[in-house]
Amino acid sequence: MIQTLNLALAERSYPIHIGSGLLDRADLLAPHFRQKKALVVSNETVAPLYLARLQASLKVAGVESFAVILPDGERYKTWETLNLIFDALLGAHCERATTLVALGGGVIGDMGGFAAACYQRGMPFIQVPTTLLSQVDSSVGGKTAINHPLGKNMIGAFYQPRLVLADIDTLSTLPDRELRAGLAEVIKYGLIRDPAFLEWLESNIEQLLARDPASLAKAVQVSCANKAEVVVADERESGERALLNLGHTFGHAIEAGLGYGKWLHGEAVAAGTMMAAELSCLLGWLDSGEVARCERLFQRAGLPVRGPALGEARYIELMRHDKKVAEGRLRLVLLQSLGRAVLTADAEESAIAEAIRLRS
Amino acid sequence: MIQTLNLALAERSYPIHIGSGLLDRADLLAPHFRQKKALVVSNETVAPLYLARLQASLKVAGVESFAVILPDGERYKTWETLNLIFDALLGAHCERATTLVALGGGVIGDMGGFAAACYQRGMPFIQVPTTLLSQVDSSVGGKTAINHPLGKNMIGAFYQPRLVLADIDTLSTLPDRELRAGLAEVIKYGLIRDPAFLEWLESNIEQLLARDPASLAKAVQVSCANKAEVVVADERESGERALLNLGHTFGHAIEAGLGYGKWLHGEAVAAGTMMAAELSCLLGWLDSGEVARCERLFQRAGLPVRGPALGEARYIELMRHDKKVAEGRLRLVLLQSLGRAVLTADAEESAIAEAIRLRS
Repeated sequence: MIQTLNLALAERSYPIHIGSGLLDRADLLAPHFRQKKALVVSNETVAPLYLARLQASLKVAGVESFAVILPDGERYKTWETLNLIFDALLGAHCERATTLVALGGGVIGDMGGFAAACYQRGMPFIQVPTTLLSQVDSSVGGKTAINHPLGKNMIGAFYQPRLVLADIDTLSTLPDRELRAGLAEVIKYGLIRDPAFLEWLESNIEQLLARDPASLAKAVQVSCANKAEVVVADERESGERALLNLGHTFGHAIEAGLGYGKWLHGEAVAAGTMMAAELSCLLGWLDSGEVARCERLFQRAGLPVRGPALGEARYIELMRHDKKVAEGRLRLVLLQSLGRAVLTADAEESAIAEAIRLRS
Repeated sequence: MIQTLNLALAERSYPIHIGSGLLDRADLLAPHFRQKKALVVSNETVAPLYLARLQASLKVAGVESFAVILPDGERYKTWETLNLIFDALLGAHCERATTLVALGGGVIGDMGGFAAACYQRGMPFIQVPTTLLSQVDSSVGGKTAINHPLGKNMIGAFYQPRLVLADIDTLSTLPDRELRAGLAEVIKYGLIRDPAFLEWLESNIEQLLARDPASLAKAVQVSCANKAEVVVADERESGERALLNLGHTFGHAIEAGLGYGKWLHGEAVAAGTMMAAELSCLLGWLDSGEVARCERLFQRAGLPVRGPALGEARYIELMRHDKKVAEGRLRLVLLQSLGRAVLTADAEESAIAEAIRLRS
């Protein structure tokens, strides 16, 4: 069964297909090529598993494809790796109308998308996410970027794909640690805007960890539906879209502070979300029972509920590079209740430091 | 006297001010800052001449500014140099709402604009062009880019400035060679779409070379008016905008083939335009008298009318990376008459090679 969502952005609208066996569905790929030529960007882990199948489907769709295989991991989300994509694009004489296909997780999607945004000032691209995190979050909505040593996703573009093809069968080969990391972003949707989904997750977290296909399909579908609604309302993050960053300002500080790739993004988001919950409690918005309810769910998902001990000052220094900072003041996504997030500059730095201290 | 053109792109519209003494006009700058903070990007040649004046005007406008000074020249239009801008932006804690101001010629404007397009996925920017080439062409219309060893402007973005401030007084310090190079792009507008301007240039080329202020102001103003009309009609270059690339496919091959910076961009465009004129003649569109008329004007402007002897095969190999290539076929801007350009895939490779041979 295939579920199809439409991300409705006028002439830049695109379908998000979610289901089993989609890698073999040439019919879903075929309508989205301006030119019958593609460069597939993947990594050393994913390519041996799925590249041949995707390229076979492209061939059936009449699309000639080349591939570039990048090293795997967040620490490679750099300009140096991005340049390998540009070299491959130029080496294969890819044109403005050639399509770039990103086959992999969040790092591949972010870099592939940013390369597509910049190559010849913009070429079409398609997301084929193969991790839970990329299927529920990063492949949808057009945020692309690379990291800078001082800040995660600091250099990038808003650039929408033409198609997202999320084959949930690929989750069967995902390491447990990455499955759990993806659940952090799934839980996020429940916490920021979907209390019914939060309850469903509390009832079904074990099935998700056991990779029950129907449960995974539902989690991906509800997550993407939430994401699509937010992106359609606020593509460029002038308002509501910032709420998707619950836990991310703290989390990005963890990732940059430890060195990219030490903690997975989802792990850092889980610990960062607990810091945000703790701060929301300090502000009197959540009670300690609600903080404990968050903690329990992350713990059941096998995710960290405390950050590393970088020191509050170092956390705050790193958080100052956050893209939501305005007029020098940190703006954070906090929880007014479970299922209702808000972007606020209300928290004093002393309270932010206290929340970090309590959770690191 | 100030001439003001409006580049009309709905909510992304912006003014282009052209005149004398504009660097000191805090009142023209002030309305365009979302936040009273700016990073000025300039180079080692321009900064000693004009940076202090611009920063003083920013201060009067209430804008706190920092500066980053890059090395000067097309060969620095690379990712490595772009990273110096990102480092400065992060070092000065620039935010999404901070403005980047590009003070310099085409290389500074292209790199500053691309940095602004990518930093935090997009920050406001302002163009303060100080060379003839950047005042008449590259500062207007939102094309930004860096070079790749295999192709000029291969990696970039369409990203519009908030303001273009063209102070023609800055042309007084421009080296003769750069003034002449700028004239190549001025002559281009006459050749592609403005026969009356072409005649005016034929009557006034000596005054322009003598830097007569009124003549320079008129040349900048008419050029910008032509550019603005084309950009408004076709911002993303799906059609008419490609005509602004007369001589550029040949010219980019010259620049990449010799190594960036050996010939100035305008010099390569002049020789490339003569190749395009020659090819237009081979196709029977121009007669030899019209080709000679082009040649005479470029020669009077002190510009090359022949390219370097790279060999036709090497030219065509380099031209294959052009952004206008479609389905493997070169598409070139050629002249149907003097004052009327067309984008065409009609020229056979043998004719293209012949035109190159005649002009190199």
